[in-house]
Amino acid sequence: MTGFIDETTAVLRRTPEVLRSLLVGLPDSWTDTTDAPENGWRPHDVVGHLITGELTDWIERTQRILEDGVSVPFETFDRFAHAERDPDATLDELVEHFVRLRAENLARLDELVSEEDLDRRGMHPSLGEVTLRELLATWAVHDLDHVSQIFAGMAGSHDAEVGPWKAYLGILLRRDDPTAVAG
Amino acid sequence: MTGFIDETTAVLRRTPEVLRSLLVGLPDSWTDTTDAPENGWRPHDVVGHLITGELTDWIERTQRILEDGVSVPFETFDRFAHAERDPDATLDELVEHFVRLRAENLARLDELVSEEDLDRRGMHPSLGEVTLRELLATWAVHDLDHVSQIFAGMAGSHDAEVGPWKAYLGILLRRDDPTAVAG
Repeated sequence: MTGFIDETTAVLRRTPEVLRSLLVGLPDSWTDTTDAPENGWRPHDVVGHLITGELTDWIERTQRILEDGVSVPFETFDRFAHAERDPDATLDELVEHFVRLRAENLARLDELVSEEDLDRRGMHPSLGEVTLRELLATWAVHDLDHVSQIFAGMAGSHDAEVGPWKAYLGILLRRDDPTAVAG
Repeated sequence: MTGFIDETTAVLRRTPEVLRSLLVGLPDSWTDTTDAPENGWRPHDVVGHLITGELTDWIERTQRILEDGVSVPFETFDRFAHAERDPDATLDELVEHFVRLRAENLARLDELVSEEDLDRRGMHPSLGEVTLRELLATWAVHDLDHVSQIFAGMAGSHDAEVGPWKAYLGILLRRDDPTAVAG
C-alpha cells in the first residue's frame, strides 16, 4: 500500500520530464500562442508561473504549517511574478530551471514531511484553514492544471492549419467558447 | 527554415515520450477517473483512442489522398473502437503499443510525403474536401486535445483531496461547469 506522499509525489516527480519531452527544442511556431485568446498564457508564462510556485509557494507553505500551524497565515502567492522575473529567459532555459527547482523541492519535502504530518493545519490568507494533505494534493493538481494550459496554447497556435477539422477538436473550440462540444 | 512536415512531426514525435513520462507506473489512484463526469474518458480510453488513430486513420487517410485524391472518401473514424479492442490491456501496455505504432507511422510518413504533396486534396465523409496539410496538422492537434484530456482525468481523481483550493483550480472547476473561471 502506497502512502499519500508517495502517491502525490508520483505526479510531482513526473512534471519535469513531461515538460522536457513536450517543450525542449520545440519550434516557436507551436509555443508563441496563449491558451485563451484573452488574458491567456503562453507556455513561457506557464513554466515561469510553475517556477514561482517552486520558489515561493509549496515548500514555504509546508514549512509554515510545520513551524507555525494556523497561527501565521501563508504569504499570498504572486501569480504574475514570472512576468517581471523571466522575460529574457528562453523557454528551454525556463524548463531546465524548473527541473532543478522541482528536484530540490522534492528532496526538501522528503526531509520535512512524513505521513503523520498530513493532518497538520495551516492558515491560507483567503481560504482559511487548510491541511498539509490538501496543500500537497493541490501542488500536484496545480501542475496538471498548468501543463494542460500549455497543450491549449500549442493547439491554438495551429487553429487555422487544421481547416474544417476544427469542428471535431474540442481543445480549439473551447478557446472560442468554453461550452462548445466537439462534433 | 523548417518545413511544415518537420514542424508538425516535432509534436507527433514528442507524444510517445510525453505519455511515457506521465503515465507509465503511475498509481491507479490517478488514472481511474474520467476527464468529464458524464461520457468522459479515463486515460486508458484516451490512449486506446490514440492507438485507433494510428491503426486506422492518419496514415491510411494520407495514403488515400496520395492514391485517390478526392475521388474516394476516407473511411469514417470509429471513435469508440478502443472499447472493444483494449479492455484487458493495462494502461502501461497501451502506452507502449502506442509508442511502437507512432514510430512506425512516422517512418511511413517520411517515406510517403514531401512538402510538395501538402496541397493535395482528399474527401472527408462529413467535412468535404480537405488538404493533406490539414490532415497532418489535425493529427498533431488531435494528440494535444487527447493528452490534455488525460490531465483533466488525473486532476479529477483528486478533486476531493485539494479541499478549498478547488476554487483556484480551473481544471477541476471546468469538470463541473465548462464556463467556470478560477478565483
